[in-house]
Amino acid sequence: MTKGSVVVGTSDTRRNERLARAALARLMEPQDSVGLALVRALGAIDAVGVATGELSAGAALEQELSALLADARGPASWPGLPASLRRWAPRVPDLAPERDVETMKRLGGRIIIPGDALWPQQLSDLGLQEPLCLWWRGQEQDLPAVSQAVALVGSRDSTSYGGSVTGDLAYGLAQRGYTVVSGGAYGIDAHAHRGALSGGVASVPTIAVMAGGVDRFYPSGNEELLRAVANQGAVISEVPPGSAPTRYRFLQRNRIIAALASVTVVVEARWRSGALNTAHHAETMGRAVAAVPGSIHSANSAGCHRLLREGGAVCVTDVGEILELASPSGTAMPRDVDSPAAAHDGLSLEDLILLDALPLRSASSVEKLTVVAGLSADAVRAGLGRLGLLGLAVSERGAWKRTKKA
Amino acid sequence: MTKGSVVVGTSDTRRNERLARAALARLMEPQDSVGLALVRALGAIDAVGVATGELSAGAALEQELSALLADARGPASWPGLPASLRRWAPRVPDLAPERDVETMKRLGGRIIIPGDALWPQQLSDLGLQEPLCLWWRGQEQDLPAVSQAVALVGSRDSTSYGGSVTGDLAYGLAQRGYTVVSGGAYGIDAHAHRGALSGGVASVPTIAVMAGGVDRFYPSGNEELLRAVANQGAVISEVPPGSAPTRYRFLQRNRIIAALASVTVVVEARWRSGALNTAHHAETMGRAVAAVPGSIHSANSAGCHRLLREGGAVCVTDVGEILELASPSGTAMPRDVDSPAAAHDGLSLEDLILLDALPLRSASSVEKLTVVAGLSADAVRAGLGRLGLLGLAVSERGAWKRTKKA
Repeated sequence: MTKGSVVVGTSDTRRNERLARAALARLMEPQDSVGLALVRALGAIDAVGVATGELSAGAALEQELSALLADARGPASWPGLPASLRRWAPRVPDLAPERDVETMKRLGGRIIIPGDALWPQQLSDLGLQEPLCLWWRGQEQDLPAVSQAVALVGSRDSTSYGGSVTGDLAYGLAQRGYTVVSGGAYGIDAHAHRGALSGGVASVPTIAVMAGGVDRFYPSGNEELLRAVANQGAVISEVPPGSAPTRYRFLQRNRIIAALASVTVVVEARWRSGALNTAHHAETMGRAVAAVPGSIHSANSAGCHRLLREGGAVCVTDVGEILELASPSGTAMPRDVDSPAAAHDGLSLEDLILLDALPLRSASSVEKLTVVAGLSADAVRAGLGRLGLLGLAVSERGAWKRTKKA
Repeated sequence: MTKGSVVVGTSDTRRNERLARAALARLMEPQDSVGLALVRALGAIDAVGVATGELSAGAALEQELSALLADARGPASWPGLPASLRRWAPRVPDLAPERDVETMKRLGGRIIIPGDALWPQQLSDLGLQEPLCLWWRGQEQDLPAVSQAVALVGSRDSTSYGGSVTGDLAYGLAQRGYTVVSGGAYGIDAHAHRGALSGGVASVPTIAVMAGGVDRFYPSGNEELLRAVANQGAVISEVPPGSAPTRYRFLQRNRIIAALASVTVVVEARWRSGALNTAHHAETMGRAVAAVPGSIHSANSAGCHRLLREGGAVCVTDVGEILELASPSGTAMPRDVDSPAAAHDGLSLEDLILLDALPLRSASSVEKLTVVAGLSADAVRAGLGRLGLLGLAVSERGAWKRTKKA
């Protein structure tokens, strides 16, 4: 099959659209602005024609593209546009979209495109940042709504602290029916998936968003784990099978992690870390960003502290605090705070002074209390009555002392 | 000498004012609103007269006090005011302000009052919250301006993490000529003073603000330390010698710690902790509040994380970040960030894609790079030129590879 069969082909429009987007994903890097303008101007099918050189561009198209690009990237002239439209030529010989679609089927997966029932609405909400398609290994089932998903991201070289925190958070989120979203790397990513798989009650406990093709479970040390993620959750990517996970693709992949989740939590990150890029994407999308604090002596928490200090991230220490961000309306679980209210909370200043003046062992007379507390006898008597009612003071033959509760 | 000698006495007005305030500090708890209204209405000397019953109050005074109290605490009627004016009677027999002033001299200290050259301006800035006087053990020297002082506060039962962080911060602040302000307790307070004393180049390296009288160095385990603080810095309190450090006085003491410093840093604190009360005072005064993050598994950091999450505290991890808050105009030292900028920072997306495509070992032809990078041959050649200039790419007989720098 050649590229020609993509553009003009069967009467099945959806099938052609799918093959066209599979082809475009092979030709173009994620977020290729000229390529995306071409798709907006002509639709995916004719965009493949122009990108492969089958259809000629012409001055009218170039003018439209210039306008679209100015729209997307600010006013600028595009003198290099004709050359840009030939940029994809070197990759044309490798085009085989039907083979790529077959590969996904063989791996038990699929390719989904905007307009499919399975296409997540939150990716369409990205506007110009929407991926052309998603390559997907895993069960055929709806991905969670954005409100039901939380991204846990962080360093590859996580510490034992970061690992255990990530595992606990992922387990707790999955137990409450939330989906965890992360990358496929060692460290925080791997701990996030393991925790979610062990706690999972959600139909999709966890999603791994890959920077390279999903035909290969990379890195190889995570192969078994990512296989389990694909079995119970989903392993997805916007780049086609066989694509290497380049630095550029990692940065673009991060926007998809951020887009799928209502909160992006950075658990551990160095001062410079890809996780901060994910947090930045989330912030740009108006999504909540959270960071887990850690020791100031740990270089692996420096990025988290940087986000707390500069980046507008919220400090979170448990699942409850994360879920408050996921549903700010307060519909999430209430906070559980382990320290109970102190017995003297809410006392007036005078009663607090009086309580301070009460001895714990041998009881004091009202007269002595007036001296110690610096209150009038009337005030002492009234205050003792109130403290007695609260169980904070007790009288013994006309003298008063504090109770153990106080 | 009796209280009478305070009110009518020598012609030395400052001396009388000083003795009157010493007497009022003995009669009234800190922030006694009726007492403070009395001082505002009559001045300190006549206020002692009324408080001791030497001068009768009268309806006109009661009306004026009612107005002042309504002013300070919001509109309310004060039916109990005549009784309130007798509240201090039980403490009158213990009054001996001249003895208290003598005690301070014997201890190598003094009492200072508003209007004294030594009175810190930042306490007058407190308005109604200004203390009546300060009892002070230490050298006779100016206390630092608010911009030169940082409060370090936290739990009594600090962990080794909290202790070492506090010591490092206090040492670093003192080394840069800043004064550390804290309480006199075990834990964070003690570590703050020890660190400041060891690093001190400031004339007043550290100040301990006590909740009880400064005649006694309490708790006894800190006696040697507090003696060293008095020798090199200052130990101060608003309550007179012999006063016990009650819970109420601790809460009021905290406002003085907050008032003396431009930044209040909570290093370690439980979910409920007096240190949070100090932070609250600082916030109310419009001063900067900072918190040091720690392990989410440590109960001693829960209060810090609470402040970061709810209290508007800034996350700080070193002295530089604290000093940014002390002088927000940016006159403080620059941040030192240990990770250098990555060589690929600031590259265009196309050049980043090209860099990703360059092999590290055997060099690639331009033709091969066009395929791997998905860029036109012209774009690859131009990009290679730019990367070459930056020292990120190098050519070998017409083929290109990445340098180690990239």
